[in-house]
Amino acid sequence: MALWTKDTQVLIVGLGLMGGSYARALKKQGFHVTAITRSQSSIDYALAEGFIDRGYTEVSEESVSSADAVIFSLYPGALLPWIEAHQHLFKPGVKITDVTGVKTCVVYDIQRILRKDVEFIGAHPMAGKETSGVESSDERIFAKANYIVVPTEQNTAEGIAWCKELGTLLGVRKISELSPEEHDEMIGFVSQLTHCIAVCLMTCKDNEHLVDYTGDSFHDLTRIARINDRMWSELFLLNREALLEQMDLFMEEFKDLRAMLEAGDVDGMRGKMQLSTKRRSLFDR
Amino acid sequence: MALWTKDTQVLIVGLGLMGGSYARALKKQGFHVTAITRSQSSIDYALAEGFIDRGYTEVSEESVSSADAVIFSLYPGALLPWIEAHQHLFKPGVKITDVTGVKTCVVYDIQRILRKDVEFIGAHPMAGKETSGVESSDERIFAKANYIVVPTEQNTAEGIAWCKELGTLLGVRKISELSPEEHDEMIGFVSQLTHCIAVCLMTCKDNEHLVDYTGDSFHDLTRIARINDRMWSELFLLNREALLEQMDLFMEEFKDLRAMLEAGDVDGMRGKMQLSTKRRSLFDR
Repeated sequence: MALWTKDTQVLIVGLGLMGGSYARALKKQGFHVTAITRSQSSIDYALAEGFIDRGYTEVSEESVSSADAVIFSLYPGALLPWIEAHQHLFKPGVKITDVTGVKTCVVYDIQRILRKDVEFIGAHPMAGKETSGVESSDERIFAKANYIVVPTEQNTAEGIAWCKELGTLLGVRKISELSPEEHDEMIGFVSQLTHCIAVCLMTCKDNEHLVDYTGDSFHDLTRIARINDRMWSELFLLNREALLEQMDLFMEEFKDLRAMLEAGDVDGMRGKMQLSTKRRSLFDR
Repeated sequence: MALWTKDTQVLIVGLGLMGGSYARALKKQGFHVTAITRSQSSIDYALAEGFIDRGYTEVSEESVSSADAVIFSLYPGALLPWIEAHQHLFKPGVKITDVTGVKTCVVYDIQRILRKDVEFIGAHPMAGKETSGVESSDERIFAKANYIVVPTEQNTAEGIAWCKELGTLLGVRKISELSPEEHDEMIGFVSQLTHCIAVCLMTCKDNEHLVDYTGDSFHDLTRIARINDRMWSELFLLNREALLEQMDLFMEEFKDLRAMLEAGDVDGMRGKMQLSTKRRSLFDR
């Protein structure tokens, strides 16, 4: 039995890049989509583009109580206060998920305060763009994305299945399951650490005069250095311990390579390069 | 007056990825191309593909003395010994260039020992691939490349013009001029440092189980982690001082960001991200 049916009413809270992309994908699937977001111009844009049916700039009973499925696409710090303030408006049995890029600090707190007749299942669609805002939204960002469902012991089998089905509806490449802790260590390494590195490559040296000399390598390593500073600084702080650990791992290795270079240890450097080459080849499937 | 004419006989010493790509490009332009390289199978391949006219596994008078233009595409350490051993075979007036990715340690030594009736003008085509060998050669790698001519006070205006004309014949995107020292600082930053970072990202953590979770960010930052360990360790050592300096610049910045994260200094982190975003936007022309 499909958990999502053509009658499922979807509410998206926060209509930016991700919220807008969810709205586009779900509207294409034929769902009725309502959005709550601060800016009237975002609502006007989404209505004009036809990927939401209704939009509200304020939380009201009318805007919340008809939803069967709620997707939070807010900055991480805004999620818990929203639920504390407005959860009395939820229809009993509603299922809720999010798109937050950090999990340990979000999932447990929400599940602890949430009404017992509704269920929150955390999820992280590993999709994005360098640009933000609803005008950048695009349902095609999901086609190459890993979609990670992050359940806890509080979740039901039905809730987890519902959340995975949402991934299928979005058209993601792969759906998987991790615990909040596993998720945060992984994301600290593959996403947050890489953003730290890209930023530092751009800020460590006045490199504007180097524009003419940068080849593919420098371009690749700094593409993500164009960054939403408000969102990423918040995500870094929310995952502080895990990210500090990944930064230290990287820094120790980098110091090690530096010492080899200083000492003229060719075999040591070649050993690292060989390991790197072997591991990286697994990623080019 | 064109310095390269249809009668110019080209000799390529070292028929690997770069030498093969030069041969392909120059053969397409109608030049007579001779190659000297160690492996008979590389010669057989290039002859069968039709991008050289003659190939030799040994240096001989016949193979060298007919050349008007010589392009060295050897490992950096092999260049000076080759010239010391065989420069008596050069035709008077021959012009010589190279493809070496480091310059200070190569250019001055060659010019010091070189016969006074021939001219060496260093060049660095910033093109490449993750794979090596003549079978990977492809003249299309030049279309997006920066081609840097690296003259010294020893060079003549004609020699420099000849070397730039070679860049035009290869079809590069942009031709520029730097001193050997400027070149090596620049390449230490935009190319060697980025390769150090990519390698360390792959070696600092056993990440094979993360294949399923890596998105575009991690893929971009580690594409160049598949690396020719013999060539790159040699290039790193030949540019040791400049590269150590760039590694230290990066490491100080990375430590600084780490300290901000540990201290919860949101404004500091956002400041770095804003600078990074501003600078990186210049690179997306």
